[in-house]
Amino acid sequence: MGVLARNVAAESVGAIDQQDSMVTPFCRKTTPIRIVIVGGGFAGIEAASRLGRLLRGDDSAQVILISSENYFLFQPLLPEVVACSIEPSHILNPIRHLCRNIHYRWGTVEDIDLKAQVLTFASADKAKPQLLSYDQLVLCLGQVVGSSAIPGMNEHALSLKTLGDAFQLRNHILSRLEEAEITDDEAARRRLLTFVTIGGGFSGVETAAAIHDLIKDVSGFYPMVQATGYRSIIIQGGDRILGELDQDLAWFAQRKLEARGVEVRLKTRVSEVTRDSVVLEGGESVSTGSVISTVGNVPHPLVKKLGLPEQRGRILVDECLRVMGFRNVWALGDAAAVPDRQKGGMCPPTAQFAVRQGKQCAHNVLAVIRNRVPAPFRYKGRGQMAVIGKHCGIAQIGRWKLSGLGAWFLWRAVYFMKLPGLRSRVRVAMDWLLDLLFPRDITKVEVHRTDVLQRAHFTKGEMIFRQGDVLDCFYLIESGEVEIIKEGKGSEPERLRLCAAGETFGEVGILANTPRTATVRSLTAVDVLKFSRQNFLSMFRGYKAFRSQVQETMHHYK
Amino acid sequence: MGVLARNVAAESVGAIDQQDSMVTPFCRKTTPIRIVIVGGGFAGIEAASRLGRLLRGDDSAQVILISSENYFLFQPLLPEVVACSIEPSHILNPIRHLCRNIHYRWGTVEDIDLKAQVLTFASADKAKPQLLSYDQLVLCLGQVVGSSAIPGMNEHALSLKTLGDAFQLRNHILSRLEEAEITDDEAARRRLLTFVTIGGGFSGVETAAAIHDLIKDVSGFYPMVQATGYRSIIIQGGDRILGELDQDLAWFAQRKLEARGVEVRLKTRVSEVTRDSVVLEGGESVSTGSVISTVGNVPHPLVKKLGLPEQRGRILVDECLRVMGFRNVWALGDAAAVPDRQKGGMCPPTAQFAVRQGKQCAHNVLAVIRNRVPAPFRYKGRGQMAVIGKHCGIAQIGRWKLSGLGAWFLWRAVYFMKLPGLRSRVRVAMDWLLDLLFPRDITKVEVHRTDVLQRAHFTKGEMIFRQGDVLDCFYLIESGEVEIIKEGKGSEPERLRLCAAGETFGEVGILANTPRTATVRSLTAVDVLKFSRQNFLSMFRGYKAFRSQVQETMHHYK
Repeated sequence: MGVLARNVAAESVGAIDQQDSMVTPFCRKTTPIRIVIVGGGFAGIEAASRLGRLLRGDDSAQVILISSENYFLFQPLLPEVVACSIEPSHILNPIRHLCRNIHYRWGTVEDIDLKAQVLTFASADKAKPQLLSYDQLVLCLGQVVGSSAIPGMNEHALSLKTLGDAFQLRNHILSRLEEAEITDDEAARRRLLTFVTIGGGFSGVETAAAIHDLIKDVSGFYPMVQATGYRSIIIQGGDRILGELDQDLAWFAQRKLEARGVEVRLKTRVSEVTRDSVVLEGGESVSTGSVISTVGNVPHPLVKKLGLPEQRGRILVDECLRVMGFRNVWALGDAAAVPDRQKGGMCPPTAQFAVRQGKQCAHNVLAVIRNRVPAPFRYKGRGQMAVIGKHCGIAQIGRWKLSGLGAWFLWRAVYFMKLPGLRSRVRVAMDWLLDLLFPRDITKVEVHRTDVLQRAHFTKGEMIFRQGDVLDCFYLIESGEVEIIKEGKGSEPERLRLCAAGETFGEVGILANTPRTATVRSLTAVDVLKFSRQNFLSMFRGYKAFRSQVQETMHHYK
Repeated sequence: MGVLARNVAAESVGAIDQQDSMVTPFCRKTTPIRIVIVGGGFAGIEAASRLGRLLRGDDSAQVILISSENYFLFQPLLPEVVACSIEPSHILNPIRHLCRNIHYRWGTVEDIDLKAQVLTFASADKAKPQLLSYDQLVLCLGQVVGSSAIPGMNEHALSLKTLGDAFQLRNHILSRLEEAEITDDEAARRRLLTFVTIGGGFSGVETAAAIHDLIKDVSGFYPMVQATGYRSIIIQGGDRILGELDQDLAWFAQRKLEARGVEVRLKTRVSEVTRDSVVLEGGESVSTGSVISTVGNVPHPLVKKLGLPEQRGRILVDECLRVMGFRNVWALGDAAAVPDRQKGGMCPPTAQFAVRQGKQCAHNVLAVIRNRVPAPFRYKGRGQMAVIGKHCGIAQIGRWKLSGLGAWFLWRAVYFMKLPGLRSRVRVAMDWLLDLLFPRDITKVEVHRTDVLQRAHFTKGEMIFRQGDVLDCFYLIESGEVEIIKEGKGSEPERLRLCAAGETFGEVGILANTPRTATVRSLTAVDVLKFSRQNFLSMFRGYKAFRSQVQETMHHYK
């Protein structure tokens, strides 16, 4: 009954929604008042679910959450996914389950017009970005992995920020073990069994420890791995690891890691990364087939694009979490520079703070809507914890410090309690239990499609794209014929040219970075090869023959 | 202790193994006798694990299993993965856990020299294929999804044969629901919510039923989907579905499916598939964004390549499962045409028969090694079952027929018992239990990397590839310089030419389909774009400008 009632309610709101999208999105004040939250990390999910609860039974405001993934990822457990002790899907929770009484929209926010109060977001069908007006805007953009200036880092280093990353990294490690088993070249095997983690912060230490434990646990199934041995190396630029913790805890962690066989190299910097090695500053080269980078998180690019007030890329907000100079824009989480009233300076970019900020922001947004005064954000943090290997952790809670088995147990208990959703808890608890009873899961799962250039088939008379679409593709016709048509306002569509097998179309929109300037329709059944924008641009920049060919084609449009 | 003991044993066998690979692989008789099993499906896993058990404590024979995935996939439950009622990883079992006392090698068998008794297999590092000699060869190649002659089918239809397929299909469906929620175009929404399954056999019916149930179950979380409704269509060429079953059970199934809202179209054939539609013979076009093909399984290409005796692509074997005309080559499972002594004709390509054949083959191989007489394969099959929707199944066991809840329950019970490995059973049981208690998991997980053309970075003086490697890549230099060197026997290496930014290398090996004819080494730090063989050939064939550029470069080598 509960579900049924909810559905009916949802349906009627769906209808309102549809109505909204038919009127111009540029109306300043929508009815109901619309609160749009951008981002589905700790801060966004907390804000959305709390607003959903606070607004239960209240039709005066509507909450919409936009996120590029339809799930909430519990990031602190990612290293355990890499270690194969938790199944990847178990630390996910569908946003539609977690946040009730709100609307979820799958998409990536591409632009926000802060004056008109309208944001633009693109879903899978990137051809037609959607507009959405808002009354209150909550930005929980988080951080992204930035492109590195170190040569080869972007191409060859793996990162650990998303579930996809964890999946890739886990499979990468298991592939290395399988390969080491087959090769009869001793040097190659040693390279395959050397794992380098760049960065000695929480993330680097936990990841390196997880990888080390995984290989130790499963090496019984890999005779050659066991015979050869393996290396796990942490490379840290600073003179100690875990800079966020007290010196003595960090030292304890380092001693423990080294006792387990993890090599920790301090005051060391990477100058180059290649397929087969890491080159250090000073010229030393470490032969390795696996480089994991845990450094280089940068603020979300939208912060710069919007021209919001910022401090080192984080959005400057007042102590009530409102963006400086705005009445109805809020920012929180890792992307926001929130003044820390307890310690001075800015709040650290951690999940703890993000969740508390999400809660405070929900209350403050409602306060503003209801013409009350928002309250300042106050929170001093509960402490910090890390796992540095199986059954070994470190924790610092206020002045209280803990290390070893007790800290490890505390770590698991705290994160278990923090896991959202009963389903996730049951699953993770099962994983931990099974991990005690069974050997670790070593299935190396490749789920990506292997064909890299995409093909497409169109039947006679189909629209391949339309003038005004922003589809990011370049097409090469393998067989068949298409016509390129210019549509004018009021006037008859004009055929610009025909394209047959061996010819290309779609270059104009990509190069000019504009929506499609013409419509393309198939005249016969057509088979095409598709190149993404990125691939097209790489080839255009790097490949002279390709560039001159494209430039020649472009003359048709002049 | 058990694990420790096993490890020590494995290690010593690993050492023997290494020794073997150092001697020439062309020796006819290895010590111990080597049994190589190719393929990790039902037949291969059963044969391997049984041989492992039968040979426990016996050092006279060694079993090696080669498979391109390091896990065994329990295919019958794939539709439940698509339906989000089982987590993808739960129907996997690592081969190294399942088959004890054997050696697993990750790789794809590329060729077999049946006279010399040596097979060639490639692992991830395709540059250097490995040779492996055998005394007894067991081929369990299975079937693969063939490329279809229907235009657009290969490009736009999804299939359901591997875990990757199930993952893609599940995410595809959930993406469609999310997109339907956002779009404000009624026709587009109806297209997004139409799901077409091609093929009305077991696989087609179970898949269509799974998709239908999934959407029905989760539509409460998708208001627009619930308001619009959705269509699920099965397209079947023949005049009935489930041709493998008795007519009346098939009719029952069809009536049930239709009562649940699945449309079944008999005597209908597809003539074209595009991004947005399925075109039927006769010209009717069904607007859809999701086409699932369950037809077009073909024998493994190796069967043809080896020139083995075949019947419609399946390897002809005698009643003892030995390939006709061979003393030491066996074939079983879907890739083999095994005479059915009970019913006449050939055994059906089902898991039931594959498992029984695996068992029989293990015994027969040992019999031959020990100079005993192999026994003929006799099995008459236990019956067939299918699930046609939530809590509704059909079963035919001998003359006994069952439909509805009872058959559904039987189906679950049988497959639960057949699941290999306690871990899998615990996990699947948990999934089924959680499915009763919680809403279905609707996390739409994208795990593939988005960058499509690969980049690579090399430091100064690195080997990019070596003469004789069979690496399938074409390179475009973005920055830096490389030298191309010809290595002669005994003579000094000769520099053929230099390549700088904007130039390409690697085309010769791909076009001639030979190992690399030269070595390439970086003279400075180098950044390259990499194209796979497939992409290179597509562009070479379809793109005139590219072809002439490549041909021009090739002149350098003449």
